[in-house]
Amino acid sequence: MQTAINLERLRQDIEELARIGSEPGGGVSRPSFSPADLEARAWFKKKLTEAGLQVRQDGAGNIFGRLGEKEGPVILVGSHLDTVIHGGKFDGTCGVLSGLESLRVIQEQAIKLKKPVEVVAFTDEEGNLVGDFLGSRAFCGCLNETEIKQGQSQFGQPLKKVLEGTGIGVDSILTAHKEAPQVEAYLELHIEQGETLELEEIPIGLVTTIAGKRLYYGSFLGQPNHAGTTPMELRRDAFLGLADFSLRASRLVISEYEEGRITIGRVELRPGTFSIIPGQADFTLDLRGFRREELAAIEKSVLAVAAETAAARGLSFHHKLVDATEPTDMSSRLISLLEREAQELGYRWMKLTSGAGHDAQILATVTEASLIFIPCLEGVSHSPQEAIRWEDLEKGANLLLKALLRLAT
Amino acid sequence: MQTAINLERLRQDIEELARIGSEPGGGVSRPSFSPADLEARAWFKKKLTEAGLQVRQDGAGNIFGRLGEKEGPVILVGSHLDTVIHGGKFDGTCGVLSGLESLRVIQEQAIKLKKPVEVVAFTDEEGNLVGDFLGSRAFCGCLNETEIKQGQSQFGQPLKKVLEGTGIGVDSILTAHKEAPQVEAYLELHIEQGETLELEEIPIGLVTTIAGKRLYYGSFLGQPNHAGTTPMELRRDAFLGLADFSLRASRLVISEYEEGRITIGRVELRPGTFSIIPGQADFTLDLRGFRREELAAIEKSVLAVAAETAAARGLSFHHKLVDATEPTDMSSRLISLLEREAQELGYRWMKLTSGAGHDAQILATVTEASLIFIPCLEGVSHSPQEAIRWEDLEKGANLLLKALLRLAT
Repeated sequence: MQTAINLERLRQDIEELARIGSEPGGGVSRPSFSPADLEARAWFKKKLTEAGLQVRQDGAGNIFGRLGEKEGPVILVGSHLDTVIHGGKFDGTCGVLSGLESLRVIQEQAIKLKKPVEVVAFTDEEGNLVGDFLGSRAFCGCLNETEIKQGQSQFGQPLKKVLEGTGIGVDSILTAHKEAPQVEAYLELHIEQGETLELEEIPIGLVTTIAGKRLYYGSFLGQPNHAGTTPMELRRDAFLGLADFSLRASRLVISEYEEGRITIGRVELRPGTFSIIPGQADFTLDLRGFRREELAAIEKSVLAVAAETAAARGLSFHHKLVDATEPTDMSSRLISLLEREAQELGYRWMKLTSGAGHDAQILATVTEASLIFIPCLEGVSHSPQEAIRWEDLEKGANLLLKALLRLAT
Repeated sequence: MQTAINLERLRQDIEELARIGSEPGGGVSRPSFSPADLEARAWFKKKLTEAGLQVRQDGAGNIFGRLGEKEGPVILVGSHLDTVIHGGKFDGTCGVLSGLESLRVIQEQAIKLKKPVEVVAFTDEEGNLVGDFLGSRAFCGCLNETEIKQGQSQFGQPLKKVLEGTGIGVDSILTAHKEAPQVEAYLELHIEQGETLELEEIPIGLVTTIAGKRLYYGSFLGQPNHAGTTPMELRRDAFLGLADFSLRASRLVISEYEEGRITIGRVELRPGTFSIIPGQADFTLDLRGFRREELAAIEKSVLAVAAETAAARGLSFHHKLVDATEPTDMSSRLISLLEREAQELGYRWMKLTSGAGHDAQILATVTEASLIFIPCLEGVSHSPQEAIRWEDLEKGANLLLKALLRLAT
């Protein structure tokens, strides 16, 4: 009997799940602990039960389906079921449901396991509550109590309020690490969220490093004044300061740091009307890098450009760090193992880096972790337009299954 | 008997009016037809009555106080009582209340008039409802029915709803021009809203030209994408397009057009979050110029820079004209008259231009109009920090009174 996943069944799971929280226009909104997320959780537990897996939920709401009688460290496979607002059907769900499908095949074919395998859906990967990765951080013991207590949803609801009636609370989140099994290896399949695989026409990407990032709130402060009466040369225009900084800093990152990234994603000017020169320009600054020293250098030089630009324009510059993660290497042993399996399966693969964060980078703090990418069309993600080719998912899921078997049998 | 205004009385009027719509921190919010504006209107009518003037309100809510039995063209003096949100106590009110004070002096001293004089408070100069100058445009017949019917407040309330219960309606606004008296000359006193007078240490400015303007909504459209996964060179970042345009266009205006002005006052990025490259950058564009041909050239070259920037960055640029006024010259006969009166009073004066719009530019379409500026501290206006020196106001109001007498006796 051939050991391979059933694409039709996997596709049905993905389409079924996509209806929960679906929106007109094809998007999916399932932020963690929204009614749609709660419905998706119930649906997933039912699926695990139907597959004959032992179902478990930890104090952080991470949901596990287990196969194998043996004690000892587990081989863990999974990702997340929550989405951003107006997201798509594939980000996260491909990994969880490919994991479920893999365990279903092992179960059906009664393959004898030397080590237990578990599929996991981590809570709130998209950072609705306390920054990204609540579930995997709780699982790995990387969350502290203060952080959780100060947590609030992107809509300003306190964490405590969001969790009401879910059976999960601030205290239980902190217990998740204590009840976590020892993990021997973690495998995650995910859409790339970039265009590299598609441009190279390669179905499988093996991630070597996940980018680290620095997120800042920044502000340039100048002098609000009348747009008609204030001559150009007397202005201290906070927006022109931001514009100047954004171009200089982008040019710097492009010319000095091959793989660095800088994004100004949100801007608000105050007072913010036609006839007034902006006295304040608030913005978000997203810096990414693939090596620890490079990211530190990007951060230092970009902040220096901001300070220089402010000084040259009679403005002041203020900034506040919101989130910081370091670049994380995936397990080279697992990459080699995945390369061998891909070779055997006859799939083309390439190594690449991930600019986006993933639960795998958190798992890497406690175990050997790996991340398998499949292409997403035109690199679009976090969007209703998110799309994949089903044959790529089939290859990714088969690679996941083979790697799982290699590790657990 | 000396013919001069009573500063203490004028100051009391200004302070009393400033309490209507006052805010913690010293600001005043009195947008037209707000409860505060309605209260200010009632207060002003009471003041006119107390001064023994004939009170009249036209169909657009413009309020007049008249002195003089004679028929025939009137000498009109005034400004506006409405303010922007979080505005100050002097913008507009200095002109109306100096006019009232001038008429009070003429009345008290029983000065014989050859021509009637009127003080006016024009409705909605600040453009809460249908762009700037609703009242003076209605008075001068420069408003059309469609424009009024489509009007809505800056908070999105339809004009009709805003006017409910005020006794003013769309139809009555259109009657204002028909019932307007013939105006022989218009005099307006106003704070400068710029720093020229203060820097020159001169108390009186005689405006030669009021800037024309072009207001646009603009948008750069690119491709939203993940901030972590999209390499810098593959991006079509709408915000960087806007930043590039803003700097280029500002440099162009500074280098090519001595008196031109360009302001980007509001910016909104979409989707507008840390981790997404902006696919859309919406902004307001405010262009001003003091000569008709210069303003047309600024408009043309700035829009060309936007289109070039978009093309160079793989973006598209879209724009929509929101408001357009041409530069307006003040009456040279009135400027000469004001120069002679200032000379006689022993006040230093200078000629200057106005970058901001004023009711005087509308009145200039039907009569000889003039605009007297007094300094406002640090050029700050449309702000709770708006401030004047009372001795400057005294000089400005005395000049207004003398000019009024010269024209009417």
